[in-house]
Amino acid sequence: MKTGVWLIGARGNVAAVSMVGAKAIAQGRTDTTGMVTAREPLSALDLPAVEDLVFGGHDIRSQSITETALAASESSGVPPKSTIEAVEDDLDAIDSRIETGTAINCGQVVGDLAHGDATAEQTVPDLVSAIRADYEAFVADHDLDRLVVVNVASTEPPIDEPERYDTADAVRSAIENDDRALPASVLYAYAALEDGHPYVNFTPSTGSNLDGLCELARERGVPHMGQDAKTGETLVKSALAPMFAGRNLRVLSWEGHNILGNTDGLVLEDDDNKAGKVQSKDGLLEEILGYETQSRVRIDYTPSLGDRKTAWDHIHFEGFLGTEMKLQFTWEGSDSALAAPLVLDLIRLVSHADAQGRSGVQPQLAAFFKSPMAYETHDFSRQHEQLQNYATEHRQE
Amino acid sequence: MKTGVWLIGARGNVAAVSMVGAKAIAQGRTDTTGMVTAREPLSALDLPAVEDLVFGGHDIRSQSITETALAASESSGVPPKSTIEAVEDDLDAIDSRIETGTAINCGQVVGDLAHGDATAEQTVPDLVSAIRADYEAFVADHDLDRLVVVNVASTEPPIDEPERYDTADAVRSAIENDDRALPASVLYAYAALEDGHPYVNFTPSTGSNLDGLCELARERGVPHMGQDAKTGETLVKSALAPMFAGRNLRVLSWEGHNILGNTDGLVLEDDDNKAGKVQSKDGLLEEILGYETQSRVRIDYTPSLGDRKTAWDHIHFEGFLGTEMKLQFTWEGSDSALAAPLVLDLIRLVSHADAQGRSGVQPQLAAFFKSPMAYETHDFSRQHEQLQNYATEHRQE
Amino acid sequence: MKTGVWLIGARGNVAAVSMVGAKAIAQGRTDTTGMVTAREPLSALDLPAVEDLVFGGHDIRSQSITETALAASESSGVPPKSTIEAVEDDLDAIDSRIETGTAINCGQVVGDLAHGDATAEQTVPDLVSAIRADYEAFVADHDLDRLVVVNVASTEPPIDEPERYDTADAVRSAIENDDRALPASVLYAYAALEDGHPYVNFTPSTGSNLDGLCELARERGVPHMGQDAKTGETLVKSALAPMFAGRNLRVLSWEGHNILGNTDGLVLEDDDNKAGKVQSKDGLLEEILGYETQSRVRIDYTPSLGDRKTAWDHIHFEGFLGTEMKLQFTWEGSDSALAAPLVLDLIRLVSHADAQGRSGVQPQLAAFFKSPMAYETHDFSRQHEQLQNYATEHRQE
Amino acid sequence: MKTGVWLIGARGNVAAVSMVGAKAIAQGRTDTTGMVTAREPLSALDLPAVEDLVFGGHDIRSQSITETALAASESSGVPPKSTIEAVEDDLDAIDSRIETGTAINCGQVVGDLAHGDATAEQTVPDLVSAIRADYEAFVADHDLDRLVVVNVASTEPPIDEPERYDTADAVRSAIENDDRALPASVLYAYAALEDGHPYVNFTPSTGSNLDGLCELARERGVPHMGQDAKTGETLVKSALAPMFAGRNLRVLSWEGHNILGNTDGLVLEDDDNKAGKVQSKDGLLEEILGYETQSRVRIDYTPSLGDRKTAWDHIHFEGFLGTEMKLQFTWEGSDSALAAPLVLDLIRLVSHADAQGRSGVQPQLAAFFKSPMAYETHDFSRQHEQLQNYATEHRQE
Ligand SMILES: NC(=O)c1ccc[n+]([C@@H]2O[C@H](COP(=O)([O-])OP(=O)(O)OC[C@H]3O[C@@H](n4cnc5c(N)ncnc54)[C@H](O)[C@@H]3O)[C@@H](O)[C@H]2O)c1
Ligand SMILES: NC(=O)c1ccc[n+]([C@@H]2O[C@H](COP(=O)([O-])OP(=O)(O)OC[C@H]3O[C@@H](n4cnc5c(N)ncnc54)[C@H](O)[C@@H]3O)[C@@H](O)[C@H]2O)c1
Ligand SMILES: NC(=O)c1ccc[n+]([C@@H]2O[C@H](COP(=O)([O-])OP(=O)(O)OC[C@H]3O[C@@H](n4cnc5c(N)ncnc54)[C@H](O)[C@@H]3O)[C@@H](O)[C@H]2O)c1
Ligand SMILES: NC(=O)c1ccc[n+]([C@@H]2O[C@H](COP(=O)([O-])OP(=O)(O)OC[C@H]3O[C@@H](n4cnc5c(N)ncnc54)[C@H](O)[C@@H]3O)[C@@H](O)[C@H]2O)c1
Ligand code: NA
Ligand code: NA
Repeated sequence: MKTGVWLIGARGNVAAVSMVGAKAIAQGRTDTTGMVTAREPLSALDLPAVEDLVFGGHDIRSQSITETALAASESSGVPPKSTIEAVEDDLDAIDSRIETGTAINCGQVVGDLAHGDATAEQTVPDLVSAIRADYEAFVADHDLDRLVVVNVASTEPPIDEPERYDTADAVRSAIENDDRALPASVLYAYAALEDGHPYVNFTPSTGSNLDGLCELARERGVPHMGQDAKTGETLVKSALAPMFAGRNLRVLSWEGHNILGNTDGLVLEDDDNKAGKVQSKDGLLEEILGYETQSRVRIDYTPSLGDRKTAWDHIHFEGFLGTEMKLQFTWEGSDSALAAPLVLDLIRLVSHADAQGRSGVQPQLAAFFKSPMAYETHDFSRQHEQLQNYATEHRQE
Repeated sequence: MKTGVWLIGARGNVAAVSMVGAKAIAQGRTDTTGMVTAREPLSALDLPAVEDLVFGGHDIRSQSITETALAASESSGVPPKSTIEAVEDDLDAIDSRIETGTAINCGQVVGDLAHGDATAEQTVPDLVSAIRADYEAFVADHDLDRLVVVNVASTEPPIDEPERYDTADAVRSAIENDDRALPASVLYAYAALEDGHPYVNFTPSTGSNLDGLCELARERGVPHMGQDAKTGETLVKSALAPMFAGRNLRVLSWEGHNILGNTDGLVLEDDDNKAGKVQSKDGLLEEILGYETQSRVRIDYTPSLGDRKTAWDHIHFEGFLGTEMKLQFTWEGSDSALAAPLVLDLIRLVSHADAQGRSGVQPQLAAFFKSPMAYETHDFSRQHEQLQNYATEHRQE
Repeated sequence: MKTGVWLIGARGNVAAVSMVGAKAIAQGRTDTTGMVTAREPLSALDLPAVEDLVFGGHDIRSQSITETALAASESSGVPPKSTIEAVEDDLDAIDSRIETGTAINCGQVVGDLAHGDATAEQTVPDLVSAIRADYEAFVADHDLDRLVVVNVASTEPPIDEPERYDTADAVRSAIENDDRALPASVLYAYAALEDGHPYVNFTPSTGSNLDGLCELARERGVPHMGQDAKTGETLVKSALAPMFAGRNLRVLSWEGHNILGNTDGLVLEDDDNKAGKVQSKDGLLEEILGYETQSRVRIDYTPSLGDRKTAWDHIHFEGFLGTEMKLQFTWEGSDSALAAPLVLDLIRLVSHADAQGRSGVQPQLAAFFKSPMAYETHDFSRQHEQLQNYATEHRQE
Repeated sequence: MKTGVWLIGARGNVAAVSMVGAKAIAQGRTDTTGMVTAREPLSALDLPAVEDLVFGGHDIRSQSITETALAASESSGVPPKSTIEAVEDDLDAIDSRIETGTAINCGQVVGDLAHGDATAEQTVPDLVSAIRADYEAFVADHDLDRLVVVNVASTEPPIDEPERYDTADAVRSAIENDDRALPASVLYAYAALEDGHPYVNFTPSTGSNLDGLCELARERGVPHMGQDAKTGETLVKSALAPMFAGRNLRVLSWEGHNILGNTDGLVLEDDDNKAGKVQSKDGLLEEILGYETQSRVRIDYTPSLGDRKTAWDHIHFEGFLGTEMKLQFTWEGSDSALAAPLVLDLIRLVSHADAQGRSGVQPQLAAFFKSPMAYETHDFSRQHEQLQNYATEHRQE
C-alpha cells in the first residue's frame, strides 16, 4: 500500500515544514509532538506511516522547497537549520517532481508571486486537463495505490455567487465552457475528486466547498474535507468560548488582533484575499454562544515576526449582577510548526476514511478546521471527542 | 415545598453576594446571567425557585451582611450600591437568623476575625450539638421541607492524616471523644449529613471530604459534593489544557500568578490556609495532559484590587520540530460575582439530587469544582457535558 | 481676576467630565489626582483656581451636559453618579450658556450628530461673526478678565493643502471670500486668536495649526498650543520608546491596537476622521528612536467598552548578538478621566502664559500633546522636565 | 594602552555571553546593538576598543566558558551556535587563564555549584592574598596598562550589620583577623580597590558597597560602581514609573512576577540569595513616586525558559474623580543578551573614568544599575541624560 501526497502550494511554508517534518521523522531526528494521530486513541488506527509518504505537488513560484525552509528558519528559527540540512536531499528529490500550477483568480498579490508559466493564458478546460495529467503521471511514476491531494496554497479571494455551481453537472459544464470566474483551488479540487483522489482543503479558499463538488465526491465515492485549518487564535477561541457558554457568562465583545510576517501574512494584507480568512475565523462565536456578539478579527502584516504569529484577544463579558469582567490572551505560535503536523494528520486520516470506503465530507475531521464543511459544533472539546469516537470505533483489532 | 439554605460563613463576600443576588432576582431587579441552571438544558429541571429560598447561617464575625455587601461595593463596585439598598430589608431579616459558629482549627488569621463567642473553649461534642440545634431550629422556625447546608466560610488549613477518619464510626467516636484535631468545616458537615441535610462544600476546606463522612452520607441517603468552586484561573485552565492535550502540544511549564484583595485574599496570605487552596488549583494539569509538567500557582494579597481577582498565566509549550511557543492570559474577574450564581446553582442542583433520592457524592456536579470529590476528568467541556446529560435525563415532562 | 473657559464641544465627554471635576473640586467632593498643576513644582505657580473658572461653550448636539455625564457614568462608571448629582445645578447653569456652533467640514459622522441649526447653510464670514459674538457676549455677561478657548470637539478629517493658509492675511481673506474648505475648528481658533483669547487645541483637528494662525497669534500677542492630548497608549509609548533608544535596543516593529466604545470611538470609526488621529499617534517613534521602524496604530470601535479605552502594544526588538525580544503592554484607561484633568491643567497653564505676556505656540506645554506644535522631543520625561523647568523659573516668590 | 578585564564568575552566563560578544565584534561577525557606548554621544568618548580587551577571571565551577555558552545556546538560542563556534579558540584561550576563586559565604546553592578547591578551608587573609596574586599575575603576563575587575558571579545572600565595616581600616582589620562573616564579593572588591584596579559590581551582592570600601576607593583614587545591573523588569519600571508621577496618577499597587530558568534563576530560587535581589528591585518606586505604594517583586525558577526571562507587571492606579485604571506589561528578554553589552559598556566607561583620574563611586553610571551606589534618581530618562551629559562634557576633541 503506497500513499502519495500531492500538495497544491508545495513550495510554501506549510508545505515545506510538513515535508521537512515527515523526512525528519523518517530519519528519527524529531518526534511526533504536535501530531494528533501520534496520540491515543488515534495512534491505534491503521494509518499510512509518515515515513512512507511520497510527496509531489503544484506551485507557481520557482523558489525551491529548501529555499523556503531556509528562509523560514532564518526569519523565525523554524525548522532548525540543522534539520533542513539533514533532509535536503529528500527535499531536492521532491522539488524535481513539482509541476507549475495555475494562479487563475488568485488575486493580484498571488499573481505577483507567480512566474510566467503560471499566469499564461490558457482555457479552463486546458488547465484542468493539465492538472489531471500531472496527478496521473505522479501516480504512475511512483506506482501509488492512493493519492491524497492537499491544498496548502495561498488564500484566494472568495468567489461570487457560489450557488451557480450547485450540481456536479453545473461544475462540469462551467469547466467545459471556459467559465472565467472559476478560481484555481476549484480546478485542483475538481480534478482530484473527478479522478477519485481524496482531497483536503487546508486553506480558506473555495476548494471543494461548492455544492456541485460535494455531489461529485459522493458520486465518485471519494472523501474530502475542509476548510481553513484551525491552528492559532481560532483554536484558542474554540476552546474558550464554550466556557463562557457553559457558565452562562454573557460575552459583550470579543476582539482579536493577529500580526504575522510570512508570505501568508503578505497575501492576507490584501483586502480581497483577507476577506475569505476573516470570514472563516469569525463564524464560530455565534454558534457556540447561541447569540450574536460584537466581534472583530484583524489580521495585519508585520514582517519582523516572520512565521511567528502573535494574536491578542480581548474578551469583555458580563456575569452576575451586571458585573463586567475580562479575559485577555496573547498567543505566540509558529504558524507553520502548528500547521505542518495537522497536514500530516489529515493526509493519514483522509486516507483512512478512503480505505474505509467513506465518501463525501468527513465530519469526524471537523476539529481540524475553522470552517468545517460538515460539523455539529465549533466547540473544540466536542469536536475532538467526535474524532476520538471515530478512532475508538475504527481502532485496529 | 419550601427549601432553606444554611450558609456557613453567611457574613462573607460569597454569601452576601449570593443573597443580594437571590433577593434582587426575586424583585426582578437583575437577571440570571452567570447562573448555569438558568440555561437550557438545566433550566428544564424541576428546581426550587431562587425567589423562594429561605436563608440563614453561621458566622464568627459580627459585621452584618449589608455591611459586607456595602464594603465590597465600595471597593470593587460589586454588587451595585443601588441593588444592595433595594434588598437591605431582606438582608436584615436574614442577619437576625445568623448564629455564632466555631472557628476551631481554622488557623490564626481566621481566629483573628472571630469575635469572642466563636473562639470560646467548648468541647467538640458540645460544638456539634449546638450546630445541630441551630439547623433544627431554623427548619422548625421556617417550616422547611428541605435544608441545604453550604460551606462558604474562610479556607481552613488542611488537616493532618485524614485517613484516621475513614469510617462513619471513626468520625463519630472522634467527635464523642473530643478530638481536638477536627476543624470547624468537618463539624458543620458532619452535623448536616447526620441529620439528612444535603451539603455543598464551596471551599477548599475539608468539609465532607473524609472517607468517614462519605460513608455517613451514603448511610443516611443524603447527597453532598465539593470541593472548592471553580470560578477563575482554574476554570480557564480546565478549558484550555484539553486543547494542548488534544493537539498533542507538549506543555513545558504552566505558571499562574493570582492577585486579589478581599478577605479571602487576606486569609490566603497566610501560608497555612493557602496550602489547601494551592493544592486544589494545581492538581488538574497532570490529569488532563497525561504527564507531569512544571507548574506553579501563586496567590498574593493585593488590597487595592478588592474583590477583583486578576490572574496571569504563562504557558510555555512545544510543538512540531521542537518549536517552542507560548500562550499567556490575564483574567480579571470579580470573585464574588463569579461565585455567587454557582452557590445558587449548587443549592438548586443538590436539592434536585436529594429529591431524586440520590445519595453520596454527586459526580454530575464536578464542573463546579476545582477538586471534585468524584469525577472522571477535569476537562471543563466534558464535565459540562456530564452535567447536561444529567439534565437531559431528568428533564421534566 | 476672573477667568472664563469656552469649550468647543461642551456637551461631549471630555468637556462634561472636566466640568463635573471642576465643580466637584469646588465642593471638596474630590481631590486633584490626575492634575499635573496640583503637584510640585507646578502647584507653586500663580494659576487661576479651578474653583473660580466660569464655563460656557459651543456644541452642535442638544443632549445636555448632565445627560452626557450620566450616560458615561452608566456605561463605564466615570464620573460616579453621586458626583454628577451633586453638581447637577452647576451643570444646568452652564448648559444654558451653550451656543450652537457649526459642523462645517467635520465629516459625515459628526454631521449626523448635529441638530438642524449646526448644519444650516451659512457663509463662512457669517459663521465667524457669530462665533465672535458668542465669545464677546460670554465675556460681557460674566464680566471676565480673560477668556480661554479650548477645542474638545469631535475629531475632524484633516484638511487638504494646509499650506494655502500660510499667512494671517491668507486666512483672513479665505474667510472673507467664503472659502468652503475651511473646517469648523479653524473658524473657532481664528475667532479666538483674532480677539486675543488664549487657545488650546485638545484634539487632532486642525484648530490653530496653520502657519497663518500662528502668525496671527504672534501679531495679537496671544498664547496658544496643541494638538491632540496625550492621554493613553501614546503617553505610554513616549515613556517607553526612550528606554529602547537609551539602551541601543533596535525596535523591529511596534504594533498598537486601540479599542474604545464612546462617541469619540464612533467618530473615529469613520476612516476620514480617523486619518488625523492615527497620524498624530504615529509620528513620535521615528523621532525618539532616530530611525524608521515598522509601526501601526489601529483604533477600533467596540461599543461594549464605553469610555474605557484598552490598548495592546506589541514591541518586537533586537538586542546584542541579534537576539530578538519583546515587550507587550495593555493599557486600560478611562479616556475622559485621563483627559479631563489635563483640560483643567491646560486652561490654567495657558492663562499663566498669557499673564506672563507670552505669545505664540508654547513649547513648555509639549508634554500634554501627541503632536506638539512646537517641541524638542516626544520623550515624555524630557518634555515633563521642560514643563518643570518652566515652573521653577516662574514659581511665585 | 592595553586594558585587561577580570571577571568574577567568568564561567557564568553573563560572562560567557559578554566574551562571545566581544570576540564576535572583533571578528566583525556581529554589530554593537545593545551597547550604549556604541551610540552618540557616548561613542565620541575616548574608550578602550572592545576588540582589544584581554579577558581573564575567577570562577568556582569547572564547566568551560564554551560549555556555558553552548548550554545557553541550546536552551534559549542565545548566543547563536555558529557564533560560539567562530570564537571557540578565543574562549579556550581565556579559559586557560581562569583561576579558582572562593565561595565563602555565598550560600548553600552556590556552594553546591563549587568544585572542591573553591570551598577549601582557607583563612580570609590567605584568600585575599591569593586573589591579589591572581590579579597581579594576569597584569604581568599580559603586560596590561589597566585592569578592570567586574563582579558577574552568582548573587550572594546580603550580609548582616554592614555598618561594622564603615572605614577602610575596619575592613582591613576584619580581613587580617580572619573575620568569617566576610563574603567572597567583598574580598574580590577589596583586593581590586587596594591594588588600584577600577571595579564594577554587576550583581546585587555586597561587593564594594561598604562604607569602608568606598573610603578605600577614594584613598586609592580608584573609580568603582554598582550595584545590580538594570536589564529587565526594573528597567521598564524605571521608564514607566516617572510617567505616573509626571501625570499625578496615583499608583495603588504595582505587582511584578518574574520567571526565569537559567542558573541565576536556580540560585535565586533560594530564599537567602533572593533576599538581596528583591530588595534592589523594589526600592525605586517610592523614590520616583514620592510616596509608598503596595509593591511586590516575585522571582520564580521555571527551567523550561532557560535564559529567557519573562516578567508580568500589573499596575493598578487611580486618576481623576477616583477612577481606577490599569497598565499591564509582559517583558520577554534574554537575560544574558541584555546584560552582556552593559558589561562591555561598564568596562569601557569605568576605564574612562579611571583615565580621567576620577575616584570613588561614579554617579554618571547610575543608569546601569537597579541600586546605584550614588545617584539622584531612579528615573531612567534622567539617569540616561546624566550619562549623556558626562559624555558631552568629556567628548574627544
Ligand atoms: N500556517 C497556518 O497555521 C495555516 C492555518 C490555516 C490555513 N493556512 C493556509 O495555508 C495556506 C498556506 O500558508 P503558507 O504559510 O504556507 O503560505 P505561503 O505563502 O508560504 O505558501 C503558499 C504557497 O502557495 C503557492 N501558491 C499560491 N497560489 C497557488 C496556486 N494557485 N497554485 C499553486 N501554488 C500556489 C505559493 O507560490 C506559495 O509557495 C494559506 O492559504 C494559509 O492561509 C495556514
Ligand atoms: N469567590 C470565589 O470565587 C471562590 C471560589 C472558590 C472558593 N471560594 C471560597 O469561598 C470561601 C468564602 O470566600 P469569601 O470571598 O466569601 O471569603 P470571606 O472572607 O469574605 O468570607 C468568609 C466568611 O466566613 C466566615 N468564617 C470564617 N471561618 C468561619 C467558621 N469557622 N464558621 C463560620 N464562619 C466562618 C468569616 O467570618 C467570613 O464572614 C473561601 O474559602 C474561598 O476560598 C471562593
Ligand atoms: N479622551 C481623551 O483621552 C482624548 C485624548 C486626546 C484627544 N481627545 C479628543 O478630544 C475630543 C473630544 O473627545 P470626547 O471623548 O469628548 O468626544 P465626544 O464625541 O464625547 O464629544 C465631542 C463633542 O463635540 C461636539 N462637536 C462635534 N463637532 C463639533 C463642532 N464642529 N462644533 C461644536 N461642537 C462639536 C459633539 O457634539 C460632542 O458633544 C476628540 O476630538 C478626541 O479625539 C480625547
Ligand atoms: N543577566 C542579567 O540580566 C543580570 C542582571 C543583573 C544582575 N545579574 C547578576 O549577574 C550575576 C551573574 O548572572 P548569570 O546569569 O551569569 O549567572 P550564572 O549562574 O550563569 O553565573 C554565575 C557564575 O558565577 C560563578 N560563581 C558563583 N560564586 C562565585 C564566587 N564566589 N567566585 C567566583 N565565581 C563564582 C558561578 O560558578 C557561575 O559560573 C548574578 O548575580 C545575577 O543576579 C544578571
Ligand atoms: Na435523601
Ligand atoms: Na497676551
